[in-house]
Amino acid sequence: MTNPGKFITFEGGEGVGKSTQVNIIVKKLTDLGIDVVQTREPGGAPGAEEIRALLVTGGTDKWQPMTEALLHNAARAEHLDVTVKPALAAGKWVISDRYTDSTIAYQGYGQGISTETLLDLHRLSTGDFWPELTIILDGHELHRAKSREIENASNEDRYERMGEDFHQKLRQSFRDIAKKNEKRCVLVSADGTIDDVAERVWKIIEDRCL
Amino acid sequence: MTNPGKFITFEGGEGVGKSTQVNIIVKKLTDLGIDVVQTREPGGAPGAEEIRALLVTGGTDKWQPMTEALLHNAARAEHLDVTVKPALAAGKWVISDRYTDSTIAYQGYGQGISTETLLDLHRLSTGDFWPELTIILDGHELHRAKSREIENASNEDRYERMGEDFHQKLRQSFRDIAKKNEKRCVLVSADGTIDDVAERVWKIIEDRCL
Repeated sequence: MTNPGKFITFEGGEGVGKSTQVNIIVKKLTDLGIDVVQTREPGGAPGAEEIRALLVTGGTDKWQPMTEALLHNAARAEHLDVTVKPALAAGKWVISDRYTDSTIAYQGYGQGISTETLLDLHRLSTGDFWPELTIILDGHELHRAKSREIENASNEDRYERMGEDFHQKLRQSFRDIAKKNEKRCVLVSADGTIDDVAERVWKIIEDRCL
Repeated sequence: MTNPGKFITFEGGEGVGKSTQVNIIVKKLTDLGIDVVQTREPGGAPGAEEIRALLVTGGTDKWQPMTEALLHNAARAEHLDVTVKPALAAGKWVISDRYTDSTIAYQGYGQGISTETLLDLHRLSTGDFWPELTIILDGHELHRAKSREIENASNEDRYERMGEDFHQKLRQSFRDIAKKNEKRCVLVSADGTIDDVAERVWKIIEDRCL
């Protein structure tokens, strides 16, 4: 399927600085006169945000792994149909904080469902719909996540509370995902200042999308 | 997979009398000394009941069809792992008011997703787990659903409000499902008194399960 707009996703573990980078990139694109929809997963549409509430709050062992994968796919199907696809069809760019790679990292590598099963589920849920570019931020996520907890006013910290083993798996899993999907994914170091990272990210977007 | 217990599901459209028949059958089995778990979908486990709330309340066009199918499968995965499979493994009988056939009737025939896609989703979500017996109640469901609305204190009426066309499709779709799955499914007329129907249902359970 060819869309007039561009669909770009940001991926990475908890607290690695994704949301900050998404904000910066959206501002830069907007300043260039590009019509950008900034969105996130799970969520990004009214119903999908209701499903998000089930996923990001509560006990870490609240759901069976397959239930959790299905809930993420349900939120994604809604997000695509209500928000992403209409925006792309209207020629807008869509920048999403997380997408299917997060499900593969968290519910796959992290919670034990096979990548093959999750890709089958993705095909059924979305018609095999992928972004044209995925920026994977790679860094020492736990430190930032922990410092953020103190400031975090919301209770949306279910994944942050999943323990150090889980978070170490995530970093390696995102690296694997980047390696297995080299055409679509670019691994970007999250080391250095926010501006350092933003410069790296912007260079990739300039090269690939502008 | 062989379980010491027995898994029996009841299916049919809105207001056809399923819940009443489930209550009667559970009482009869219990009176025989059988350890029975009475349950329902969507729901039947704490997390699955949270998902149920998203599905059975609110506007009839609240969800995209695929989102809705995924939510039902998420609730089902949770229900199976938390409630159904542990009970069967412990030698109990499990009687569920609705299961996957409802997803095929409602989201498939009713909302336009192909049966093949829904069966693929069922395989991924449950490992292709089916009951050994499904009783499909076949009757003039709309009349009963309408009269029930007046008494119904809950707001769990999203599917009941889906319009007459939708409900007429459901009856035919359950008949089709019964025909396509003759080994597992038995179509039972819901005409006559509650006792008439209960007698028909009990005869099938006696023949097939006792």
